[in-house]
Amino acid sequence: MELLEKEIAKKGKVLPGNVLKVGDFLNHQMDASLLCAMADEVCKHFFCYGINKVLTVEASGIALAVLIAERLDCKMAFAKKSKALNADGDFYSAECVSFTRPDNNLIMLPKPYLLSTDKVLIVDDFLAVGNATNALRDMVKQAGATLCGITVAVEKGFQGGGDKIRADGIDLLSLAIVDEMNPDTGKIVFRKQ
Amino acid sequence: MELLEKEIAKKGKVLPGNVLKVGDFLNHQMDASLLCAMADEVCKHFFCYGINKVLTVEASGIALAVLIAERLDCKMAFAKKSKALNADGDFYSAECVSFTRPDNNLIMLPKPYLLSTDKVLIVDDFLAVGNATNALRDMVKQAGATLCGITVAVEKGFQGGGDKIRADGIDLLSLAIVDEMNPDTGKIVFRKQ
Repeated sequence: MELLEKEIAKKGKVLPGNVLKVGDFLNHQMDASLLCAMADEVCKHFFCYGINKVLTVEASGIALAVLIAERLDCKMAFAKKSKALNADGDFYSAECVSFTRPDNNLIMLPKPYLLSTDKVLIVDDFLAVGNATNALRDMVKQAGATLCGITVAVEKGFQGGGDKIRADGIDLLSLAIVDEMNPDTGKIVFRKQ
Repeated sequence: MELLEKEIAKKGKVLPGNVLKVGDFLNHQMDASLLCAMADEVCKHFFCYGINKVLTVEASGIALAVLIAERLDCKMAFAKKSKALNADGDFYSAECVSFTRPDNNLIMLPKPYLLSTDKVLIVDDFLAVGNATNALRDMVKQAGATLCGITVAVEKGFQGGGDKIRADGIDLLSLAIVDEMNPDTGKIVFRKQ
């Protein structure tokens, strides 16, 4: 998506350790008009699937997920990284080692929020090695629901998670794929799509 | 807001310990059409303030916050409950004891996401004693920004946080105010607005 690539090239910061900071406009402070354009693009791609559930994990995927759910006129649910005190009932849980928060390794979703009849679109802000999306795929499988596809704002192509998902035959829409980035020069190379 | 009160009366669960569970449709799994109607209502009320920044705290306030930012065509930022490994630079921080997660007591927001020129609307899903909204107000004050108002989906009126905010002369829009709820009968009494 050209608009997103331009914004990343202009405002993204490449830091050592494979970190691409886009918190100014994409996943911490958010430019609503950019996120809406992204949600429009996602819905154009996935419109024909009959999706009735958008699934993400807290916290930075929630904004894009709800804007997509608004456009698909369906429900959105997010997996949590820890259990609240007022949590009750049965949960799906899945292993998820976070790139930026290695201390959290389990995500949880109440079972009633993911049904075997659900047609699911998984949404997240970033895809690197694929830990979060794999954990969400695991939950979809546990529920016996149908996975229609996965969409992410930014795929870090050089970390391989996206290509593994494609090799599994899953419809993955990455709005921008970064194939190279250099913390010394700040240069970012996008994959042609 | 009549539609929200009806949904809470129909689907909300009153649990012991002042807990109102609305996770099925409001703040964990979310009914996008209901949230959009709520965002419309909020924007009608705050439209004339010239708001350019919607501020919330992760995670369950993010969805409503971004839908409001979409309608006000402005930016949204959320405070985090812990610091990510790729966090850099200066942060605002404020004490925030959570009702459902008492182990987290500090929220953080990078300073560039809240400027002295910002006209801010604070958004959250719940308002009880007011810990989260007070922490966000503290950040707005630290930044020297202008607080235009506060909006929440559900105010638990009997816990007093909302009335304290009103006593400070702040424009608070609570889309539903629960004045009584009974875990034995499940009965919920809303404040007439």
